[in-house]
Amino acid sequence: MGDIACSNGISNGNGVNGKAHSSLNGYRKSCWYEEEIEENLRFCFALNSILHTGATQYQEIALLDTKPFGKALVIDGKLQSAEVDEFIYHECLVHPALVYHPNPKTIFIMGGGEGSTAREILRHSTVDKVVMCDIDEEVVDFCKAYLAVNKKAFCDPRLEIIINDARREIESRKECYDVIIGDLADPIEGGPCYKLYTKSFYELCVKPKLNEGGIFVTQAGPAGIFSHTEVFSCIYNTLKQVFKYVVPYSAHVPSYADTWGWVMASDSPLVLSADEFDLRIKQKIRGENRYLDGKTFSSASILSKAVRKSLNNETHVYTEGAARFIYGHGSACNQNHA
Amino acid sequence: MGDIACSNGISNGNGVNGKAHSSLNGYRKSCWYEEEIEENLRFCFALNSILHTGATQYQEIALLDTKPFGKALVIDGKLQSAEVDEFIYHECLVHPALVYHPNPKTIFIMGGGEGSTAREILRHSTVDKVVMCDIDEEVVDFCKAYLAVNKKAFCDPRLEIIINDARREIESRKECYDVIIGDLADPIEGGPCYKLYTKSFYELCVKPKLNEGGIFVTQAGPAGIFSHTEVFSCIYNTLKQVFKYVVPYSAHVPSYADTWGWVMASDSPLVLSADEFDLRIKQKIRGENRYLDGKTFSSASILSKAVRKSLNNETHVYTEGAARFIYGHGSACNQNHA
Amino acid sequence: MGDIACSNGISNGNGVNGKAHSSLNGYRKSCWYEEEIEENLRFCFALNSILHTGATQYQEIALLDTKPFGKALVIDGKLQSAEVDEFIYHECLVHPALVYHPNPKTIFIMGGGEGSTAREILRHSTVDKVVMCDIDEEVVDFCKAYLAVNKKAFCDPRLEIIINDARREIESRKECYDVIIGDLADPIEGGPCYKLYTKSFYELCVKPKLNEGGIFVTQAGPAGIFSHTEVFSCIYNTLKQVFKYVVPYSAHVPSYADTWGWVMASDSPLVLSADEFDLRIKQKIRGENRYLDGKTFSSASILSKAVRKSLNNETHVYTEGAARFIYGHGSACNQNHA
Amino acid sequence: MGDIACSNGISNGNGVNGKAHSSLNGYRKSCWYEEEIEENLRFCFALNSILHTGATQYQEIALLDTKPFGKALVIDGKLQSAEVDEFIYHECLVHPALVYHPNPKTIFIMGGGEGSTAREILRHSTVDKVVMCDIDEEVVDFCKAYLAVNKKAFCDPRLEIIINDARREIESRKECYDVIIGDLADPIEGGPCYKLYTKSFYELCVKPKLNEGGIFVTQAGPAGIFSHTEVFSCIYNTLKQVFKYVVPYSAHVPSYADTWGWVMASDSPLVLSADEFDLRIKQKIRGENRYLDGKTFSSASILSKAVRKSLNNETHVYTEGAARFIYGHGSACNQNHA
Repeated sequence: MGDIACSNGISNGNGVNGKAHSSLNGYRKSCWYEEEIEENLRFCFALNSILHTGATQYQEIALLDTKPFGKALVIDGKLQSAEVDEFIYHECLVHPALVYHPNPKTIFIMGGGEGSTAREILRHSTVDKVVMCDIDEEVVDFCKAYLAVNKKAFCDPRLEIIINDARREIESRKECYDVIIGDLADPIEGGPCYKLYTKSFYELCVKPKLNEGGIFVTQAGPAGIFSHTEVFSCIYNTLKQVFKYVVPYSAHVPSYADTWGWVMASDSPLVLSADEFDLRIKQKIRGENRYLDGKTFSSASILSKAVRKSLNNETHVYTEGAARFIYGHGSACNQNHA
Repeated sequence: MGDIACSNGISNGNGVNGKAHSSLNGYRKSCWYEEEIEENLRFCFALNSILHTGATQYQEIALLDTKPFGKALVIDGKLQSAEVDEFIYHECLVHPALVYHPNPKTIFIMGGGEGSTAREILRHSTVDKVVMCDIDEEVVDFCKAYLAVNKKAFCDPRLEIIINDARREIESRKECYDVIIGDLADPIEGGPCYKLYTKSFYELCVKPKLNEGGIFVTQAGPAGIFSHTEVFSCIYNTLKQVFKYVVPYSAHVPSYADTWGWVMASDSPLVLSADEFDLRIKQKIRGENRYLDGKTFSSASILSKAVRKSLNNETHVYTEGAARFIYGHGSACNQNHA
Repeated sequence: MGDIACSNGISNGNGVNGKAHSSLNGYRKSCWYEEEIEENLRFCFALNSILHTGATQYQEIALLDTKPFGKALVIDGKLQSAEVDEFIYHECLVHPALVYHPNPKTIFIMGGGEGSTAREILRHSTVDKVVMCDIDEEVVDFCKAYLAVNKKAFCDPRLEIIINDARREIESRKECYDVIIGDLADPIEGGPCYKLYTKSFYELCVKPKLNEGGIFVTQAGPAGIFSHTEVFSCIYNTLKQVFKYVVPYSAHVPSYADTWGWVMASDSPLVLSADEFDLRIKQKIRGENRYLDGKTFSSASILSKAVRKSLNNETHVYTEGAARFIYGHGSACNQNHA
Repeated sequence: MGDIACSNGISNGNGVNGKAHSSLNGYRKSCWYEEEIEENLRFCFALNSILHTGATQYQEIALLDTKPFGKALVIDGKLQSAEVDEFIYHECLVHPALVYHPNPKTIFIMGGGEGSTAREILRHSTVDKVVMCDIDEEVVDFCKAYLAVNKKAFCDPRLEIIINDARREIESRKECYDVIIGDLADPIEGGPCYKLYTKSFYELCVKPKLNEGGIFVTQAGPAGIFSHTEVFSCIYNTLKQVFKYVVPYSAHVPSYADTWGWVMASDSPLVLSADEFDLRIKQKIRGENRYLDGKTFSSASILSKAVRKSLNNETHVYTEGAARFIYGHGSACNQNHA
């Protein structure tokens, strides 16, 4: 249904009324999802259907069935995740840190309400406990209900879902984690998640909650040849102020129309050959990765000349302006609006 | 749902993942229906949802929920009818002929599977019997199922629905009708309905099946200042070869992005003042018209200078080329492909 | 140039580089002008070229060469006038008033910097003097330079071009006019021209500057079956408070994707049969109208049922809120920002 | 000009005519270039202007000034090359082969009419002679005239431009080359360049014209996680049948909305460490590369898991069907249509 070719040549019947006057010679896709990648750039997907739309307390949500990328989750007009290639984003976010860490047992996800990050983590046999802390309960419920691919993960007894501001939650917890993962919106000044990317947040909230040998990893925005200066280089530089070892890496995600970036950071050395990487994958991860293996990661973590240069030359560090920073009060991104 | 404004200013939560990096300052409609009015001209409606898509033996069908025009029926990539303004098309197609005719009892609709033409006819208290003959059973079933506005009409005992080629059906019938209505796709050469607009069809099939004083009316394609030369002028001129009295008229239909045309034809004079028109409406039609009254019709039947001129100067007559015309074999438009 | 069909079937050469991988089977128009008719509705024209873009003190300007409508003047992202159908707008704005007036000699245009309104006025042999008062000198210069069709009009010795706020200009002048024409942006509250559509402006500035038997006419925004309630009905109702005789009329302008409205007002009766209208056209207008004649105007001035009803029921009158209205200070629309 | 922000808040003057009724609150980019990346996927760039359009004997050509990617050369509706990122494509096409070759003196370019490939080659100080053979003289002339960035290259005395079918030209020449470069449209079956990607062409025409130690390199179409199976894997596999050493590599090109691929092939080993690569760049290339250095190439030549797997499993080899293959008659792509 939907994809039937036009009955060209043959009759297409005595139309319901007269307005078929120029439809004879085949016809084009007519329903489209249109995203403004940036002000002057649009990426448009033909649509099969609009599966669900709605609005939570915080954001507007849609689940679309697109022709080029399958089911797509859209929040506030931005594609979050598309069925056919979300594995690239989520494998890259999760596996390097959990592979580099020799024995990751406890994981804390800031954000991640979609469930895909938890799903990838739960494939690791070493993992005992995953805390996923998202502020938007309705997004979590929506994804539970609609994203079949994550159904099993949402039911895994190792997963604890908390609805709270990530900062408040992590501060309030006494326990530490082997890996902490940032699956948050980008650090736009004044944006909801800005305060979860600052030097002080990393120093005062994240690092103290990492176990010995623990690793922090965060999505780090677009990392394309031009777009990496938006936030990627600065997230990298901010983490460099706080952690001894910092590894930026990137991968092209077709549905984002860009190369995407992540940064992994730790006070323990992050060194692993491609072969060791592959060996650990084999030992630790159930099922087979579709995107990531040792060679892929070694390629992903060698940035191209221009990006490497920008990162090395980046001087900006994300900080919360003295005036705006009120310790313990919670951040814009995750605070309860009660 | 769907139309909730963006949570501007406030937080929009710690996004499901990171890709919300430029969504802060409000955002635009992102799902669109796009129609090519002509090769170089598109008309695009923001979408609420795609209610249904499917394909029949003859054509591809979709029911969309659009923001500017409500529910819209699209066949083979062309908008047929939109909830908010289909009344213009259907009142203009039906009421002039049924008002001009002093006492219309029996009506034959060629096409009309959507049901709206029948709905308007059935509002006339004089009408005893309506035959609606559409070739595409699935379109009829689809519209029965999905177009709530026509539900009552589809159940009216005066309505007889026939699935057949309109020409074959009308030829096979012995009875005559007071009004015959053409609610068919435009007469594109080689198109499905071309043979239902030719001089010989009008002469040999339509006129003989009209009762004394009977009236034929047909939708006649776009009638705008430029577009009226596509088919409107030629339908008019063809009918002028066959009937003594021919009245072309037009109205702007917003969802078509054009002015639309109809032609009414009879061997009895078609004269009625605006006041008489209004009086008859009052006497004959149940409920109130939204578009058409006496003044509206008098305006609609005075074409603008340029269109009037073209119609008067039109010399082309639709004929079936000798070679292509095989009498009794049925037309491309309505034949059973059995 | 530009419209050459794709060399389908034959070779299209060893492409400049490799990115031609799916261009074999013909290809589509790829440059488009896209206008948001309203938030949920877009109208898109294929482009031949972008002839000129620029910005004046007041507005952003572009001259485009479009495939469906020829050269198009776009101001602040809204189509003002398209080569192939601007005659509809300008003939409707100018000729009814100048034909109804028995002997129009002096004309004042508020706005009209494009030159087309002046062009149509200057076709009237009775006209001695036309004052065109537009606030934006650069638009006037731009149109002088680029709109070949108005070149002659701009050079006509009867035309006096004034760069000023229309209200300030008309107030400062002692002389009266036979016809005053409003060729201004729509009266959006807070918009630039709102104060040139208010009851007090009509009463205190326009009416006193009309000679005995003088006529005022203004463009009056979209007048479609749904869109006429935006401003058309209210402009009509406001003028009804000030003038004894008020005639609203409308016409479909394809490039606007809507029916457009104008309102003519006078304290002298506005009655003329279609035949008299035609006779006066013959006597007074050099060259032949493309759109307007007596019959066209009689059709244009009979509004459809729904629009007629709205206009009759309209109660809103445009006024300047007491607080906002400072007499003699000039209006937002035309004031010099010095 | 063009990028002036909307005069929001303030007045925007008394518009040229009335159609500015909803333009108050800022406005959007309205001219767009739209490319169908594939049937269900579009990539759209806001336009500053259309600098030139035209049609040659073989193809339709346009030079656009786009907001996101600067000047863009479009052939037959497909973006070929954009000002801001064409360096990625052309550095990747040219430099690996010329760096791997210890002393490249003579180069043959099949296609390349844009001039950018020649420009990059001519930066190599070892190069004595470059033959660029493109079938379309008008494209060459167009690019000479309009692409300022390649002006110097087009005038370099080492460059010989030949207008001919590449196969015919290379066959007719007695001399051999150190590097042969394929800068051609993709090998679509029935497409213009298909025959320049076949095993027999590589065996009979290319390989015999390489000097001892010579290297062949070709653009190889999209190489994204999904798109690499279109032609990239097959070009790789075909070259593997003919050459002892074959190196596929890829890079994300933002304006293509995809990762792009190239394949380098030789009968001499292709081994070079990142440091040696950088050293040779320093020794041989005038000016500084923007994209490519040793590390970038080592990353580019490690394909991701999924792509690597497809390439290894690819079994298809491009051949000219016995029936279609007429030796010595020239190929569809480059033949003179005389």
